[in-house]
Amino acid sequence: MKLEQSYTVAQIAELIGAKVIGDSSVLITHLNEIHKVCKGSLIFLDNEKYASQAIYSSASAILVNKEMECPANKALLLVENPFEKYNDLALMFRPKSFLQGQISPTAQLGEGTVIAYGAIIGNHVKIGKRCVIHANTVILDYTVIGDDVEIYPNTTLGSDAFYYHVNPDKSYDPWHSIGRVVVEDQVRIGAGCTIDRGVSGDTVIGLGTKIDNQVHVGHGVVIGKHCLIAAQTGIAGKTTIQDYVTIYGQVGISKGLVIGEGAIIFAQTGVSKSIPGGGKKYLGSPAADAIQTFKELAAIRRLPEMMKKWDKMIDQSEDKE
Amino acid sequence: MKLEQSYTVAQIAELIGAKVIGDSSVLITHLNEIHKVCKGSLIFLDNEKYASQAIYSSASAILVNKEMECPANKALLLVENPFEKYNDLALMFRPKSFLQGQISPTAQLGEGTVIAYGAIIGNHVKIGKRCVIHANTVILDYTVIGDDVEIYPNTTLGSDAFYYHVNPDKSYDPWHSIGRVVVEDQVRIGAGCTIDRGVSGDTVIGLGTKIDNQVHVGHGVVIGKHCLIAAQTGIAGKTTIQDYVTIYGQVGISKGLVIGEGAIIFAQTGVSKSIPGGGKKYLGSPAADAIQTFKELAAIRRLPEMMKKWDKMIDQSEDKE
Amino acid sequence: MKLEQSYTVAQIAELIGAKVIGDSSVLITHLNEIHKVCKGSLIFLDNEKYASQAIYSSASAILVNKEMECPANKALLLVENPFEKYNDLALMFRPKSFLQGQISPTAQLGEGTVIAYGAIIGNHVKIGKRCVIHANTVILDYTVIGDDVEIYPNTTLGSDAFYYHVNPDKSYDPWHSIGRVVVEDQVRIGAGCTIDRGVSGDTVIGLGTKIDNQVHVGHGVVIGKHCLIAAQTGIAGKTTIQDYVTIYGQVGISKGLVIGEGAIIFAQTGVSKSIPGGGKKYLGSPAADAIQTFKELAAIRRLPEMMKKWDKMIDQSEDKE
Repeated sequence: MKLEQSYTVAQIAELIGAKVIGDSSVLITHLNEIHKVCKGSLIFLDNEKYASQAIYSSASAILVNKEMECPANKALLLVENPFEKYNDLALMFRPKSFLQGQISPTAQLGEGTVIAYGAIIGNHVKIGKRCVIHANTVILDYTVIGDDVEIYPNTTLGSDAFYYHVNPDKSYDPWHSIGRVVVEDQVRIGAGCTIDRGVSGDTVIGLGTKIDNQVHVGHGVVIGKHCLIAAQTGIAGKTTIQDYVTIYGQVGISKGLVIGEGAIIFAQTGVSKSIPGGGKKYLGSPAADAIQTFKELAAIRRLPEMMKKWDKMIDQSEDKE
Repeated sequence: MKLEQSYTVAQIAELIGAKVIGDSSVLITHLNEIHKVCKGSLIFLDNEKYASQAIYSSASAILVNKEMECPANKALLLVENPFEKYNDLALMFRPKSFLQGQISPTAQLGEGTVIAYGAIIGNHVKIGKRCVIHANTVILDYTVIGDDVEIYPNTTLGSDAFYYHVNPDKSYDPWHSIGRVVVEDQVRIGAGCTIDRGVSGDTVIGLGTKIDNQVHVGHGVVIGKHCLIAAQTGIAGKTTIQDYVTIYGQVGISKGLVIGEGAIIFAQTGVSKSIPGGGKKYLGSPAADAIQTFKELAAIRRLPEMMKKWDKMIDQSEDKE
Repeated sequence: MKLEQSYTVAQIAELIGAKVIGDSSVLITHLNEIHKVCKGSLIFLDNEKYASQAIYSSASAILVNKEMECPANKALLLVENPFEKYNDLALMFRPKSFLQGQISPTAQLGEGTVIAYGAIIGNHVKIGKRCVIHANTVILDYTVIGDDVEIYPNTTLGSDAFYYHVNPDKSYDPWHSIGRVVVEDQVRIGAGCTIDRGVSGDTVIGLGTKIDNQVHVGHGVVIGKHCLIAAQTGIAGKTTIQDYVTIYGQVGISKGLVIGEGAIIFAQTGVSKSIPGGGKKYLGSPAADAIQTFKELAAIRRLPEMMKKWDKMIDQSEDKE
């Protein structure tokens, strides 16, 4: 999330009671997770595994829970519980807010846009021109929608990421999601869909993409332009779907993958690894090249008969022994 | 869709600026897609593959984009883009409309019917007697519901078909859906369901059929009487489910199929071809006779062990060579 | 369901016009189904298969449709159609009711709890402290929610069980559901979820459990504490999920099962039998130990090639004959 203004590390340290190691005059402009940072990012580190990735990333400041050396032009903010302090900052910079009416007075609606009865438009939402937001759809805070977008009833945009921090006692603490949902021009989103906001970045639905009913799009997913996504498909957090991808019904796609431009994924397929596009077709759970899967399915169909012959052969060979 | 009055081909031609080939006095009473036509139907043709099917169908008039011969008692309407003109007519005869209140003044509600707080009843909707429409359910325009029907919260009836015309630049144009959702007596539809209207015909849920939560029913699907459909099942467009079919949870059924009377489809099955009924049971993705699938599953369970033996045998036979 | 006061068997018999066999002074305090009874329970019996289970259960009274011997300290209530009379009593003791406003005046809301615009809170609902019920979520009658619970938009709690009595003509009669949904402290339920009430008992979501979007939880399901359930998973009626279970996306779990404490179920898995926990991992449809399933998947990948070799060998051995 880009902050509305920049802060020095010293200012941030005062807000959360942290000790600064390194350059306390460094400017902080973003609150980010470790997997997507830039100059100006403040991130947190509470897992030693990611220590060197964090320290040598382009992030300008890192919340840490033990003393360590700090490279030049950066700062470490020493606190007892870095995750908790990150969450505290997220809540300070983007407090939770709840609607008191159907359409927030802070929402901006373009010319010719229709908000049907019962649709709810949250705080700081921007919607472009000639859009239709159907009855009982809920557009939560900070969502950005382009022109000529149609969203069907009972759909939710901008729910928080399903993303938890595991405590030592195996209970879960939620991250306070501060990302957004961004929907580009000419997109259609069906009825009963759920599109989560990013944890700290954006969930994006690209130009002209058409999404059927009951589709779930996880936090931080980026979908390219002119994709087709059929009903009841689910896409887990931070996955990228490139342009012109076709996804049939009830497909599941795991988190953090890349689906190549022009890929075609058949119904009920479960994609667990990144896959190239270029018109390639995928089928099966786990997904494989559809031609390979069809061969396997044909072989499986013959398998019971084959097992019988095999057992007979084994019996005969044992008889001979 | 049946038009509210009939028009001559000449009148239609004037509305969209078409040149008439054939009999311009022929009467048009329906706007249809090629797969379901009758005398009086106006359809469109923009794919040469379907030319003879279209011309020799019972349709009375066809929007075409090049000159061709016209049989007797029919008319061709020559335009540059038949799909676009079909869509223009669909919009003329059934303009998009959006609700300005919870219950449209044009809706008809039978005696004893309860519309819970937050449920939304669109324009020209008809609902029979003793129905319960639960909170926050959305019934869109032209839906017809019989007697003694119960529909649970957050369900959507009458959303537009997920049905697109692919442009040469691989972007998608929506068809303007003008069909309806028709729900017969004693039907129950669970919470969080989505039932799309037909593109030009009706989506039908037959007498006494019970549908669980989060079920998706695509455009133009026809479901018979006394079916049971469990949660999170999806049925793609134009499929027919005959009477007394039982469908377990998370089943997917492809478009345009026929599921025979009394068929039983087990959970998570993916049906990709039409299947006979008569009490037959189906399992697997793709679906097969459940007995066959159980045999395959048993054989697969033994496969890793068998592969080991097989590899050993191959090794031994290679050792001998 | 626990009744608000106790009744003698004689009083119940008068309400429904039943003939009493046995002790008509026995007190009735609960209306139950046969699978979960206690002293004070009234149940019904219309399937001879369950006759001895019913009669020798701890239930205090049983609706029956033929004369039989009654043990001491119990009563049989003889009627023509026990199921119908059970349903009549259920309706008498818990009549259907529909909201006339957004928040029922009979609902109890704890301090600091936020009900967003468009969320609907039914009759006799209890919600604890510091909860957030997001826009357009529907909480139906008698639901009980603890402290610090967050429920996202367009979710439904307390819809009726998908549970039917099959008539001789193969039509279906619904049971009137009189159970509740009980949500313990610190639970999160995502957007677009559906949680059914129990038929006569409670559906329970345990302490600290986190549920993602579009999850379906059937009637009478009991989920333990600190479970994680990812998007689009469905759990059928009366299943028990013990503590610390992790369920990935699009998993299906059949009815009446027990998922052991700490079990991990991978995406798209279909669980058809009870499975032990203790950190064990499951994959496949039907579910198996993930290590076994991975071996099978590896073997299947080699199967087409192996079939070719096998066919060649068969050919050669036939050539020799």
